[in-house]
Amino acid sequence: MVAAVAANCVVGVDLGGTKVLVGVVDESLGVLHRIQHSSEAADANELLDRVAEMVDEAIEAAPQDVLGVGIGVAGIVDAKAGVIAASPHLPLAGLPFEALMGERLGVPVALDNDGNTSMLAEWRHGAVKGASDAVMLTVGTGIGGGIVANGALVRGSTGGGAELGHMVVEQDGEQCSCGGYGHFEWYASGAAIGRAGERALAAHPDSTLAAAAAEGREITGTLVTEMAHDGDAVCVEAIVEVGTRLGQGMVSITNIFNPQLIVVGGGAIAAGDLLLDPAREIVEHQALASLGANVSIVVAEFGADAGMVGAAVLAFEQLAQR
Amino acid sequence: MVAAVAANCVVGVDLGGTKVLVGVVDESLGVLHRIQHSSEAADANELLDRVAEMVDEAIEAAPQDVLGVGIGVAGIVDAKAGVIAASPHLPLAGLPFEALMGERLGVPVALDNDGNTSMLAEWRHGAVKGASDAVMLTVGTGIGGGIVANGALVRGSTGGGAELGHMVVEQDGEQCSCGGYGHFEWYASGAAIGRAGERALAAHPDSTLAAAAAEGREITGTLVTEMAHDGDAVCVEAIVEVGTRLGQGMVSITNIFNPQLIVVGGGAIAAGDLLLDPAREIVEHQALASLGANVSIVVAEFGADAGMVGAAVLAFEQLAQR
Repeated sequence: MVAAVAANCVVGVDLGGTKVLVGVVDESLGVLHRIQHSSEAADANELLDRVAEMVDEAIEAAPQDVLGVGIGVAGIVDAKAGVIAASPHLPLAGLPFEALMGERLGVPVALDNDGNTSMLAEWRHGAVKGASDAVMLTVGTGIGGGIVANGALVRGSTGGGAELGHMVVEQDGEQCSCGGYGHFEWYASGAAIGRAGERALAAHPDSTLAAAAAEGREITGTLVTEMAHDGDAVCVEAIVEVGTRLGQGMVSITNIFNPQLIVVGGGAIAAGDLLLDPAREIVEHQALASLGANVSIVVAEFGADAGMVGAAVLAFEQLAQR
Repeated sequence: MVAAVAANCVVGVDLGGTKVLVGVVDESLGVLHRIQHSSEAADANELLDRVAEMVDEAIEAAPQDVLGVGIGVAGIVDAKAGVIAASPHLPLAGLPFEALMGERLGVPVALDNDGNTSMLAEWRHGAVKGASDAVMLTVGTGIGGGIVANGALVRGSTGGGAELGHMVVEQDGEQCSCGGYGHFEWYASGAAIGRAGERALAAHPDSTLAAAAAEGREITGTLVTEMAHDGDAVCVEAIVEVGTRLGQGMVSITNIFNPQLIVVGGGAIAAGDLLLDPAREIVEHQALASLGANVSIVVAEFGADAGMVGAAVLAFEQLAQR
């Protein structure tokens, strides 16, 4: 049993669709120790055990007792009940995850969606620090969201809100992993960059990208982004296409929320301004003028750590309230 | 000069794209006197004068001194500055409307967007009374919006927010009156019902609707709705088509806000469940399951008075704070 008071570090957990990132985080948000493994698992028990082992390892590595554990999970969270209502990429749907992890770990656990924890990191200490009205997009395999309005996180009536990746942007569009149709994340995520790359190489069979495919390389968002940074015009075009779609979603976000800032994190932000400049141009020209003129589109400061660091912030804030 | 204290009635003004509705409203939200005129005007001065005359008439008709005037306007409002930033349907863009009306009237004036005032009426006293998380759609010529999250109206950083009619729902869609493309109000408004009717009569030249068109009747949302209520299958189909589009926008709203309630007002609600049942079915099947199961889609209580009554609520609340 660890001390529940007078401790000034916590463990943050980012439980994503492909990886689990665990960190020991102090009150100044320094990351003292870091562990990462795959989140692929045959069933819930295997995944719960793995996360618990990682957290135990982190607790042992911590320079002092930890106050508790914050977990940001890629799924729809009923934060009030501590339950994961849905998780297309993880075998955790329907589980009272907060209680189960608390039992395994013997320390207090706070649970939220990973989009919300990422926003919490950026809002308390990062690129949108102190904003009254801001929106975060975590653009990776899918698109996660976090919303601050009136100076508070918008989690919705059961804590499942801010699923901006599941806005309908194409009324009769492609089916999403969630079962809906035409969702934002299909068109504007990191995975969408990979798909745009596949279309581009089909249209340009003489391109460097097509040559890479012929060598057996998988056409992923990461590869397309790397080749675009190396100056490959076909890959740049693919990223501009996705950046345009990203911008169209940001038009909705701007018109709905009239935010000061839209902050973009997640793996796809490796594309940088290649991705964001087309999005900025769309917002400048297509959002309602007085709202588009008031919004800045910026890069997340915590990068790939945002979900984990934000989970630590969640632990500090929620466990301090208990 | 009227007394600024101890008065218990105000004047509410709904300044819409086609009409101005002015009412004397008491603290129990009873409407004591009501005046309506067209909002068509050659320029800002003509419209300012007309609204001022109507308000003066209302003040004279009031049984006692009025505390002030609340105005909900069809446009993008910078509520902090009291300025109308944009108003595609009215010649008021860029005007410091709150100050100009205050000068003309000699009583305190509070200004907001008409979607926000409608939500204020429904949230304080109507169909979503007391909800912590709810969204309003006013479905008429366009679609206005109002959002309550964490128990507060979401107006955005400059008060221009909640423009839900200007969500992008079709990435390469039709151009909107605001200049953007593929916006929700093009596909799911009262005007969209009229357009769906026009497509339906082209597809069904032997229909009653086609006969009405041949008699020279204009195919509007109102006509299509009336004929649908009379049982005309072609008109019912047109409304179902628009209700489906309305539902797709509500999928976005549900996934973003995880609201307890979505409340629908505006002229198009005359179609009732003919419009809302297809929308409910789409939300039930296509929203994220745990969020779709938590939301109810309901009809506004204040009907065509919502914007005006909500403007009165705004006056009571804002002027009481001064």
